[in-house]
This record gives sequence, structure tokens and C-alpha cells, in this order.
Amino acid sequence: MTMSALIPVANGNEEIETVCLIDIARRAGMDVTVASVDQQTITASRGVRIIADTSIEECKGTRYDLIAVPGGTEGARRLSGSQRLAELLERQAGSGRLFGAICAAPALVLEPLGLLEGRRATCHPNLFDSLRRGIAVEERVVVDGNCVTSRGPGTAIEFALTLVEILFSDQKAKELADAMVVRKRSVLVQ
Amino acid sequence: MTMSALIPVANGNEEIETVCLIDIARRAGMDVTVASVDQQTITASRGVRIIADTSIEECKGTRYDLIAVPGGTEGARRLSGSQRLAELLERQAGSGRLFGAICAAPALVLEPLGLLEGRRATCHPNLFDSLRRGIAVEERVVVDGNCVTSRGPGTAIEFALTLVEILFSDQKAKELADAMVVRKRSVLVQ
Repeated sequence: MTMSALIPVANGNEEIETVCLIDIARRAGMDVTVASVDQQTITASRGVRIIADTSIEECKGTRYDLIAVPGGTEGARRLSGSQRLAELLERQAGSGRLFGAICAAPALVLEPLGLLEGRRATCHPNLFDSLRRGIAVEERVVVDGNCVTSRGPGTAIEFALTLVEILFSDQKAKELADAMVVRKRSVLVQ
Repeated sequence: MTMSALIPVANGNEEIETVCLIDIARRAGMDVTVASVDQQTITASRGVRIIADTSIEECKGTRYDLIAVPGGTEGARRLSGSQRLAELLERQAGSGRLFGAICAAPALVLEPLGLLEGRRATCHPNLFDSLRRGIAVEERVVVDGNCVTSRGPGTAIEFALTLVEILFSDQKAKELADAMVVRKRSVLVQ
């Protein structure tokens, strides 16, 4: 059965992080839905205009194998204002299915929902002190149970490949890494 | 004076490569023009829809400090069909101003124009044998005079930071790398 992923987006999301998540999940063969909490065309943090597949409202009640939240401070702040996304993330976390966030999103989206409570987690260095309820860890990608967090555009490929490694296999992640010419030491779960 | 960059795009360009170039050039403070050789909204290689700023036809006669060409086999093939882009690249190369290409684009865009003649260059491993007129080098980023080439999505940040290093300074590239949480060893010109 095809694995499914939800990538929520908003104006101000970091475009490298957003696109790495979408691209690599699709390379892995996942059915990826890019859902906006704003209008359908979002303007990312450095001005790249990306057209979402649908609205977050349309995702109500849908079950995803993965929900992965891109960062960018303004984008993460806007995502944190979506009640629909909050419901989806809370259900994902509670059900044991995989969820993750990168850069500003662990601190601004997962933390306020209490989803990092007692978990090892990381985020962008600028927001590291905001991980108050979790166990803040200075690593590039941190896996704790069904929650995966990461730090910024420069860790976005490692983050996405870690999600593939968990949902599929080491082998699948390595195949994708080779095809993308990723440094070999960047793809292992730490 | 503000530095300017042209990023030509087409349907089928690799979205990680495309967005890394745009994002990092804008982080460096460059005035970046994303110009399509197809319609204004392109569908990248893994389905991400990106809205260009303008058409390549509108770029005729404009002087850029940098022209950087994203890959993805189908995207590079379509870019290679643009006479306007060919003229811009030939003039850029001849004038000594900086130009570059990544992934399939060195082999499918620069090579047929003769712009790699006698130069050290690299490209995606799958197309490596197509670098017939250049000196093919298996490195992640290769600089030869005003020509910079690179290999794939996993080298896109290093490629873009190398362009920043050449146009601005080591210090600027390092500042961007730190803010993006890039591995330190990935940012130096090799």
C-alpha cells in the first residue's frame, strides 16, 4: 500500500526545508499532500512562490503515515495558528504514527501543543531555548519514538532521509541518498 | 551595488536544486530573477509547482553577475532548447562573469554550447560520461575560472555557497552556512 504524507505550508515557510520534504517523500514513492493554511499559493521565506495541492481544511479526518512540518519562523508561526493542523498533529502523535518538524517548527508548532513533553528534540539554534518541555539535544536530526526533529535548511535532506529510513528502510534511504549525491555520512539516524 | 543573479527554470527542473539556488542567492542579498523558458508556473521534477518571476525572453540584453542553471534531466533538456538562454550563457562565459550549472545541466546545457571546452567540470554521476569536451572531475563542486559545476540535490547547498564565496567572501558564505546549520566541511571551495 502506498504510504501517505501531509506537508502543511504557510506564507513564510523556509523553501529549502519545504521542498526537501516534498521531493524526498515523493522520491520514496509516498503520496504527498501539500496543504496550505493560507491561500493556495504561498510565498516562502525567500520569495519563492509555491502552489499547494489543497487547503488544510480539506485534510480533516484523513489518516497520514507521516506529517512533517517545515520551518522558517514566520511560516511556523502561521502554521501554529491553524486549529485544523493542531488537531491533525495531536491525533498523529497520540496514534503512534510518525510526525516531525524542522527549524522553527519544533519550537513554534510542536512545543506549544505539548507534543515534545519529555521527548528528546532539537530545533534551529536561534530557538533552542524555547524547547522547555522537551529534552533539548544539539544534534542535526533527533528521533524519539514517533517524533523526529531537525535544525534548519542545511539539515533538511538528512531530516527527510531519516523519515524515509523509519517508514521504509535503511536501504531505501541509501538509494535515494546515492541518487541525490548526498554525503554518505549524512544519512544515518543518530 | 546589489549583485544580480538569473536562475532560468523549466518544467522538470529538480526542485531542491532550483530552490537552493534562489534561496541562498537571496540570503546573500542578491537581486534574483527566476525566469522560465516554459509558462510562468513550472512543475518541477517531483511535482512541486513554482511560479517564476518572468519569462526568459524578458531577460534579453540584461547583464547579470551570475547565471546559475538548475538540473533535473527533463528540466535541463528543456532549458537547452532555449536560444535566449544560450545567448545569455555564451555572453556570460565570454565576458568573464560567473556562471554555473548543477546535476544534469552541465552535461545537457553547458556542454552542447562548448562552454566546458578545456575546463575542469562535474555533473550528476549518471551523465558523467557526457562531459566529453571538458576535463571531467568527480568532486562535489568544481570551480574553473568563471565556471562552477556541481552534481545533484545533495550538493546544491554547497554549490550555491561556493557561488556566494566567489561573488562575496568566505566570511559571507560561512555566515549563511551557520544560519542554515550546514555542516562546516561542506562550504569550502575544493
